[in-house]
Amino acid sequence: MINIAVLGYGTVGSGVVEVINTNHKSINKRAGDEINIKYVLDLRDFPGDPVQDILVHDYEVIANDPEVDIVVEVMGGIEPAYTFVKRALESGKSVCTSNKALVAKHGPELMEIARERDINFLFEASCGGGIPIIRALNSSLTADEIDEITGILNGTTNYMLYKMSTEGCEFDTVLKEAQAKGYAEADPTADVEGYDACRKIAILSSLAYGRFLNYENIYTEGITRITPEDMAYARELGMTIKLLATSRKVGEDSFYAMVAPFLLSQNSPLFSVNDVFNAVFVHGNVLGDAMFYGSGAGKLPTASAVVADVVDEAKHLHRNIMMNWSSYPLNLMDMSEVEGRFFVRVKGTTVDCVKEAFPEVEIVNLKELPDEFAFITSTMRQGEYEERIRALADHIVTMIRVKD
Amino acid sequence: MINIAVLGYGTVGSGVVEVINTNHKSINKRAGDEINIKYVLDLRDFPGDPVQDILVHDYEVIANDPEVDIVVEVMGGIEPAYTFVKRALESGKSVCTSNKALVAKHGPELMEIARERDINFLFEASCGGGIPIIRALNSSLTADEIDEITGILNGTTNYMLYKMSTEGCEFDTVLKEAQAKGYAEADPTADVEGYDACRKIAILSSLAYGRFLNYENIYTEGITRITPEDMAYARELGMTIKLLATSRKVGEDSFYAMVAPFLLSQNSPLFSVNDVFNAVFVHGNVLGDAMFYGSGAGKLPTASAVVADVVDEAKHLHRNIMMNWSSYPLNLMDMSEVEGRFFVRVKGTTVDCVKEAFPEVEIVNLKELPDEFAFITSTMRQGEYEERIRALADHIVTMIRVKD
Repeated sequence: MINIAVLGYGTVGSGVVEVINTNHKSINKRAGDEINIKYVLDLRDFPGDPVQDILVHDYEVIANDPEVDIVVEVMGGIEPAYTFVKRALESGKSVCTSNKALVAKHGPELMEIARERDINFLFEASCGGGIPIIRALNSSLTADEIDEITGILNGTTNYMLYKMSTEGCEFDTVLKEAQAKGYAEADPTADVEGYDACRKIAILSSLAYGRFLNYENIYTEGITRITPEDMAYARELGMTIKLLATSRKVGEDSFYAMVAPFLLSQNSPLFSVNDVFNAVFVHGNVLGDAMFYGSGAGKLPTASAVVADVVDEAKHLHRNIMMNWSSYPLNLMDMSEVEGRFFVRVKGTTVDCVKEAFPEVEIVNLKELPDEFAFITSTMRQGEYEERIRALADHIVTMIRVKD
Repeated sequence: MINIAVLGYGTVGSGVVEVINTNHKSINKRAGDEINIKYVLDLRDFPGDPVQDILVHDYEVIANDPEVDIVVEVMGGIEPAYTFVKRALESGKSVCTSNKALVAKHGPELMEIARERDINFLFEASCGGGIPIIRALNSSLTADEIDEITGILNGTTNYMLYKMSTEGCEFDTVLKEAQAKGYAEADPTADVEGYDACRKIAILSSLAYGRFLNYENIYTEGITRITPEDMAYARELGMTIKLLATSRKVGEDSFYAMVAPFLLSQNSPLFSVNDVFNAVFVHGNVLGDAMFYGSGAGKLPTASAVVADVVDEAKHLHRNIMMNWSSYPLNLMDMSEVEGRFFVRVKGTTVDCVKEAFPEVEIVNLKELPDEFAFITSTMRQGEYEERIRALADHIVTMIRVKD
């Protein structure tokens, strides 16, 4: 019997208990042993809930019980999660977590402690909810050198952009709707400003390139300034707008990473990833294109990923599962050096003025917006774009990047 | 150092050598040891190719060399692959293969030998080329009870149907084009009749449901009778036609499986899987929907999957990786019990006659085909459909299943 303790009985924590109870037969078969939930830690009481019998309020009970083999941290936030997890690992208990903030900030240290003690610190649910992308990077795509990861990693913003695209609504309207449906939180900042996606791409990039990418160094731009007019242009171009979190290896030691809204063409497999779904596109030097698609959030899909980690840890109780992530820092190029194409809406200027600064562009007009027009630049360094756009500075309505 | 022997220096075999040479640094790091190609087995010589130095024509050399840890079987076909693989396993060498015919026919026996000897028999490349679906089923989706797998598992037919859909060409025309491009073989039977996809869905289903599904029991229908007119109807309905290989668990001990062309709506994540790409859709009882997308064939993507198996076997040299596949047979429902919807084109009859047999259907007309019309039935058992359609038997142009 393998004893686990679940820290936090919120949405994900109750999902973990539910999944283990629902599928206990097949889970025990996969794990090769019986998985027993010995404790659930929460400050609250849950009278009438069967979990009440195994509920503890004090982490000491779990930390000091040598029978606990695996600690499942699903509280979220940095503290006390970090202290609890570190203590569990230091006392020889494997840990799995859905906590992206914790992994993005303290991942290398916690992995190192697990490695030293021949136990495991796993975090499949921290990126892309139920999408099994971490294990794919870790143990499936091992023949490849990954040179790109691009994900739709935030379900809230993907839902909002999808609604704006298909129904033409304003950002504020669709945000209220998303909040009413429980897809967006009362304070939506972490989602709509791209902070959530930023931590996830930091984790995925660190695993793919084998170095620690500090999320604080990633250029991050949210979706708050995207309008129905931008969506109308996208439609006219046969494209759509998605919030992408992306990183690329462009040379032996040259990487860039960013989170930003992008215009995306129909050729991209990410084009059809709609509603609250997430997807991660990966390019390997021998594999070529691959994509992983699924529910990026939600109680049960996230719990499914957490429990898959529990099964993996049960199968490797005193054997570290190797991860390609060192504490050696991954340094990013200056954003001015990053190449791309840029979609620009301008007002109060002429096509001739635009062609003076950008001779090669094609002009896009929208019937419903007679006072303005737009264009997409050729591929150039962002620094060059900024230099060339200066002449049009007073006339820019908006700029959105274009995904190639 | 871990010594491997590659059986077969054809497309995949030369790809395996190329991948190991190209990415040797990162592969050795992932494997935790140096991967050395000690032998390549082929009946032919390759003068001038560096592989000539390690080429052997006689399998005995490999079988009798105790230094060979891993045998990579990429010859294809049942014999002599089966004999070679069995002998390697029996002498304690792990084996990985891209050979779907071998796995579909002898998988349970070979896995059992590996299990007994604490070595491994892996076959990531046998289904979906570079798509890491086998390892996902095996070690990622372990918290779930899978109740559906539906794949576009054959790149040749997906390319052909895509061309027929976008360019309106006839089956024969697009087959010749596919052959000219090297996407289809001179004898295209295994692809266009669905036999290739059939073996792959047998393997995936066996892993997902934990029982052995004999591919010979799977109803299999190819794409040879699909016409540009069918594609025109699909377009009119906002749908497309894809060759799907699908299996479903519909009750505690009730499964069905089939390979057939299906009309697919835009809501399906498989809708946008075009060209030679493959994808596998999986539904789990807690995970919900997930999809894995990538190159289903091709030298390097397939080799990428084979080499990922080599890395996994190097990391688990004398430790069996548990698989959820027993030799206990998975029995399929009778096809007449399988529920579905049916798209039917009829000629020389009236809407009234159709409504008499199928009161609930909606009628579809195509301007360019004034002599006929079509309809889609509601969901019913195939047996009921066959009974009800009998009245219209003389007027049926074609029937194609509809994917819900």
